[in-house]
Amino acid sequence: MRAAVLRQGRVETRAVPDPVPGPGQVLVRTLATAICASDLHYMDHPEAGADDDSGWSTYDQDVDIVMGHEYCAEVVDYGPGSRRPLAAGTRVSSRPVMFGGGGMKIIGQNPETPGGFGEFFLLDETLLKPVRSDLPSETVCVSDAVAVGWSAAKRAQVRPNDVPLVIGCGAIALSVIATLKRLGAGPILAADFVPSRRALALAMGADVVIDPGEVSPFQAWRDVTADSHEATKNMMAAAGSSACVVIECVGVPGVLESIIRGCERGTRIMSLGGAPEGDHLSTLTAKRKGLNIQFGGGPLPEHWNEAFEAVCSGSLDVSPLLGRTVGLEEVAEALDAARDANGPARIVVVPDAERASQ
Amino acid sequence: MRAAVLRQGRVETRAVPDPVPGPGQVLVRTLATAICASDLHYMDHPEAGADDDSGWSTYDQDVDIVMGHEYCAEVVDYGPGSRRPLAAGTRVSSRPVMFGGGGMKIIGQNPETPGGFGEFFLLDETLLKPVRSDLPSETVCVSDAVAVGWSAAKRAQVRPNDVPLVIGCGAIALSVIATLKRLGAGPILAADFVPSRRALALAMGADVVIDPGEVSPFQAWRDVTADSHEATKNMMAAAGSSACVVIECVGVPGVLESIIRGCERGTRIMSLGGAPEGDHLSTLTAKRKGLNIQFGGGPLPEHWNEAFEAVCSGSLDVSPLLGRTVGLEEVAEALDAARDANGPARIVVVPDAERASQ
Repeated sequence: MRAAVLRQGRVETRAVPDPVPGPGQVLVRTLATAICASDLHYMDHPEAGADDDSGWSTYDQDVDIVMGHEYCAEVVDYGPGSRRPLAAGTRVSSRPVMFGGGGMKIIGQNPETPGGFGEFFLLDETLLKPVRSDLPSETVCVSDAVAVGWSAAKRAQVRPNDVPLVIGCGAIALSVIATLKRLGAGPILAADFVPSRRALALAMGADVVIDPGEVSPFQAWRDVTADSHEATKNMMAAAGSSACVVIECVGVPGVLESIIRGCERGTRIMSLGGAPEGDHLSTLTAKRKGLNIQFGGGPLPEHWNEAFEAVCSGSLDVSPLLGRTVGLEEVAEALDAARDANGPARIVVVPDAERASQ
Repeated sequence: MRAAVLRQGRVETRAVPDPVPGPGQVLVRTLATAICASDLHYMDHPEAGADDDSGWSTYDQDVDIVMGHEYCAEVVDYGPGSRRPLAAGTRVSSRPVMFGGGGMKIIGQNPETPGGFGEFFLLDETLLKPVRSDLPSETVCVSDAVAVGWSAAKRAQVRPNDVPLVIGCGAIALSVIATLKRLGAGPILAADFVPSRRALALAMGADVVIDPGEVSPFQAWRDVTADSHEATKNMMAAAGSSACVVIECVGVPGVLESIIRGCERGTRIMSLGGAPEGDHLSTLTAKRKGLNIQFGGGPLPEHWNEAFEAVCSGSLDVSPLLGRTVGLEEVAEALDAARDANGPARIVVVPDAERASQ
């Protein structure tokens, strides 16, 4: 098959052997795979992959790796001994993980578990979800990105009087905003340097957007909440709590630190960025403020399923996230383009054979 | 009065003006004040005090500052307009904070709110707690340290199957251990390089003590929990959760990072150390593991009250924490001695007049 292959730090599209499904595995044909910022994190930071003792994500520059973990695909065949739960030709997706003898692996972030930037790849039979939808595969494939934001928004446990502040307005942030909106939270504040991203935030449900180059997001938060009843605020402060819930969706060193320094006492921070370089954090300030930081983690399985159904049913409209579609030959260029914050939240890769048939 | 005064980074005992209670303030005579590691953090890190935009703790090297925030004292007089809630001569303590026009201030960490390393100091009338106890003041004064650990242990929300791991065995850690024991948690693991501190941990209720120079605390944790039912572990892991609750009580750069790198996925970390230098944290590892870090914060008022009553009633025996007693003239030397992890968890300062009368 043809695939966009990561090797020695760069991506090129060429022929590689077809993947062969083992026991419990499904061979699928790629219909559409979205480019995610964590593809860039992964390819740019081999030391982070080499350093991960979980084994979920590994990186070896000397072997072929096919990235791509936000996909919509079609069942082709099953490995030995399968119950063949869905017929060949069924459109499917799944959480981007593969279970097996060596523990869990993230699909598209391991040499053994190639992802959707190739014509074919493998899924875990037990995680297969049929796509019950008339929506195009390019739309369905972003449900994994939506699931990350969906789960984070749900796990942030925003209470009725909380005012969430979303830092960064990439695809994950936009999903966070859409989910917070569904949960009835508000006003929702969202900050990004890029005007087009702020426009997307409004489209997805943000009530107030902030240009951090103009005003501190925390000052904006204080302005918006200035009318809150003083007694409520004092009561919450006495209980070591704040109405401030910050969802960090940037993943660049210094951002989490700036949140620690800027936020209110008792703020709860949901940190989804996961900067591969790490961040130097003011632990004394964090201690004085009694901050809580929940680091991302993947979406819980039930949250992934909910987000997938919301995207497939069209009840969560992801069209504002979608930019152009490219072929396999253009993956290297499209990965580079995805670095540009002025671009769309998602560029989608559709293998050439699929494109021809559209 | 005489006081141990912090000025230009060093402490000397000399005469300073007597404090004068303002409206809502109480003049108290110091009976006993314990030396806390945060006195050392405060005096060693003027940049951290200068940098704290909360105003709770401020530091000016060019003015006199009297530290000391774990105290037992005796009511002398009240400021103008007071209801005089407790008679002169009553033994009292309080949370080490003062409310007023300029917002909240930590007692002993601001020029305007001197602490208990002088013969007299001021308390906030609204926070005054009478000491209903026959225990000596040297014992009662450590209740504030106990409150920090007590509140942290309660806020850590240890569940029935959780196995807590306490990193560091200083006074706060020992209070955490004692409180966890009361809450029925266990087995409780505690790690410290110093044999005498490990012995104290056992005395306060730890079930397993670990020398991190010999074995990784996380390996020890895995060994202790190896017998847990596999199905329970898998169920928890699927819910993004772990039975691992780590309470960090060290406050030295690198320790929080080593916890992030060493701990299980889904671990909840209660970080009480608050290293003034900050810490470089592996945010990607924290994200992959879905870690939650709750940074200290002060004890909640109700937790402070509970801990104070537990110490005063003798139901929580703090005697293992207590080392020698020193006079005001010896505070500088005793602060230095408190840097030695081989020393006792608490050295207590008793002003000279009080010592003479004992």
